[in-house]
Amino acid sequence: MPLDPVKLTADLIRCPSVTPGEGGALVLLAEVLSRAGFACTRVDRNGIANLFARWGAKGAKTFGFNGHTDVVPVGDAAAWTHDPFGGEIHDGVLWGRGATDMKSGVAAFVAAAVDLVTEAPPEGAVILAITGDEEGAGRDGTRALLDWMAATGEAMSVCLVGEPTCPEVMGEMMKIGRRGSMTFYIEATGVQGHAAYPHRAKNPLHALIDLLGQMTGAPLDTGTAHFDPSTLQVTTIDCGNPANNVIPAKARATVNIRFNDAHSAASLIAWGEGLAAEVSAATGVSFAMNPEVSGESFLTPPGAFVALVARAVEAETGVKPVLSTSGGTSDARFVKDHCPVLEFGLVGRTMHQVDERIEVAQIETLKRVYARALREYFA
Amino acid sequence: MPLDPVKLTADLIRCPSVTPGEGGALVLLAEVLSRAGFACTRVDRNGIANLFARWGAKGAKTFGFNGHTDVVPVGDAAAWTHDPFGGEIHDGVLWGRGATDMKSGVAAFVAAAVDLVTEAPPEGAVILAITGDEEGAGRDGTRALLDWMAATGEAMSVCLVGEPTCPEVMGEMMKIGRRGSMTFYIEATGVQGHAAYPHRAKNPLHALIDLLGQMTGAPLDTGTAHFDPSTLQVTTIDCGNPANNVIPAKARATVNIRFNDAHSAASLIAWGEGLAAEVSAATGVSFAMNPEVSGESFLTPPGAFVALVARAVEAETGVKPVLSTSGGTSDARFVKDHCPVLEFGLVGRTMHQVDERIEVAQIETLKRVYARALREYFA
Repeated sequence: MPLDPVKLTADLIRCPSVTPGEGGALVLLAEVLSRAGFACTRVDRNGIANLFARWGAKGAKTFGFNGHTDVVPVGDAAAWTHDPFGGEIHDGVLWGRGATDMKSGVAAFVAAAVDLVTEAPPEGAVILAITGDEEGAGRDGTRALLDWMAATGEAMSVCLVGEPTCPEVMGEMMKIGRRGSMTFYIEATGVQGHAAYPHRAKNPLHALIDLLGQMTGAPLDTGTAHFDPSTLQVTTIDCGNPANNVIPAKARATVNIRFNDAHSAASLIAWGEGLAAEVSAATGVSFAMNPEVSGESFLTPPGAFVALVARAVEAETGVKPVLSTSGGTSDARFVKDHCPVLEFGLVGRTMHQVDERIEVAQIETLKRVYARALREYFA
Repeated sequence: MPLDPVKLTADLIRCPSVTPGEGGALVLLAEVLSRAGFACTRVDRNGIANLFARWGAKGAKTFGFNGHTDVVPVGDAAAWTHDPFGGEIHDGVLWGRGATDMKSGVAAFVAAAVDLVTEAPPEGAVILAITGDEEGAGRDGTRALLDWMAATGEAMSVCLVGEPTCPEVMGEMMKIGRRGSMTFYIEATGVQGHAAYPHRAKNPLHALIDLLGQMTGAPLDTGTAHFDPSTLQVTTIDCGNPANNVIPAKARATVNIRFNDAHSAASLIAWGEGLAAEVSAATGVSFAMNPEVSGESFLTPPGAFVALVARAVEAETGVKPVLSTSGGTSDARFVKDHCPVLEFGLVGRTMHQVDERIEVAQIETLKRVYARALREYFA
């Protein structure tokens, strides 16, 4: 009897796995998967729970799935129409935190994988790498699973991440890459003084305005073959000087960059630090740029794996998916260092919101997409 | 017997008249002046104490002095070498808050005026307009005195303000005008959004960087006949957005302008609001510029009064004074609407600092400068 992905999603929603809590979600999945013949291993690190499950022989041709069971907090609990941890279904809609992001996606690929190995065991292996830390710091989640896999000789040939990818209509978009993300936490240090005697001071705000004006003044690029243009946003500037007759000594700014494959974090750091050095030489104000890199951009170029997943999406949804690299970051940015990785999931409109919910039909369709991709991969 | 300006300064220092407190200073001066024949009137307004004193006939040719007895707070009291309210003299130096700014200046002109009217009564009148609110808000200080004088038909023909004007050497500088001062308290309002999707947001920081870049990008002018170049300083930018993936909705900046007679507050407001309107039209971010005007620039051009004071300075100090319009604002900005106004005082190096102090010889010299100016004016 096929595994019902809607019931499994509802059962997962009833596990209060607010990041980084396990909440019983991975325990439940390990039971379901073990019963179907998967070898399950908890790969916990620094208190974060992660589940690795493999069916089939280690080293075989392996289809992998990646996803997470942790969820963001409920926010204003009183504003929810239904219990965020109730897993209630009303008029064909399943309500609860994680209904779209992404207990439904995990349930769909678990159900598809269990059905495959019990009903039509393939020549090869299926690996499910499921983390309890995607919404939080992300240091000990998918990265811990991949580190452990590398150390123990486990490998996926390809990987499909089950995050929601469709803006409005089921099937309309899959992700073949993501822009990278990095942030400068800039500190400008000048010399304090009286606003009436600026020649005796060095105003860090003027230098910062010059630097940020250069950083925001021209687009970083106009986009590449598979990517939208990179974007750069100043997200805050702070000084906290209450006196309008005082030139302050210090000021801070944060600059976040989402970059495509025309750049790397290293090239952008060199660019930012180069501009800062020029402004510093001209003004005498010193800059600490303090770059932090969230992830490089990556791309799984159109090819056999992309075509296989796209065909499965179109066959089951009737919609030809756009191959996109838009949006924020996901754990695909870690997986791409191991094997070709794509992302396809349902419509994420209510993710992270009050009253997160999903039509149950979408979960069933998503399971069929994953099942078809698995069948065709091993055909 | 001549009035000792050093003893009077020390007595005034012992009055703890931290702005806007009267501290006994104006009461003391009213006693001294009344004894010498001055008609004294307290012109208090909104709890601020001010003293008006006239010797001679109302409506006569009148030499006026203006000054203040309030002082800034002591700051770190433990860091003072001597009691800031002790008025102690050690090795020819008088210590205490107000020793330079400007209980010494007030004592010097009071002593000069008392000596004049008692020893050689002139044909004319002498007015002393002394406030207890120059270091604070300044709303009910010299302005209150001038308002009351206008309402009661009191008038000065010329006025000398006793603020410290010499940077290093007694006699080297007098002020014949001051730059104006105004401040924009800018609020920029855009549309909040996700840093990865800037096309759905309007970043107020980018618009602010554009606006401030234009305001700071080029000098306002290169100076005029009697004035240094105008200066513009951004004194703070604040946003307070802690999230590096969020484009904020609002940001604020403060811009202080010290301007010469090539501008007026009105022309600068029109300039700033014009730039803001252009940036707003280009970006969709709205600006509230919130201008506040502290004072217009003013100038008492070189002429008979300037020459008279300059001669007195040179005769008593041996130094030919530079005619300057540099520095911050003073109450001369109010007096200039009533009559020609100049400023001359001693070396202000320690004003507003811990261990404020002055050589007693400077106070004696200052009294002689004021006395000579008075004598020559009525000669």
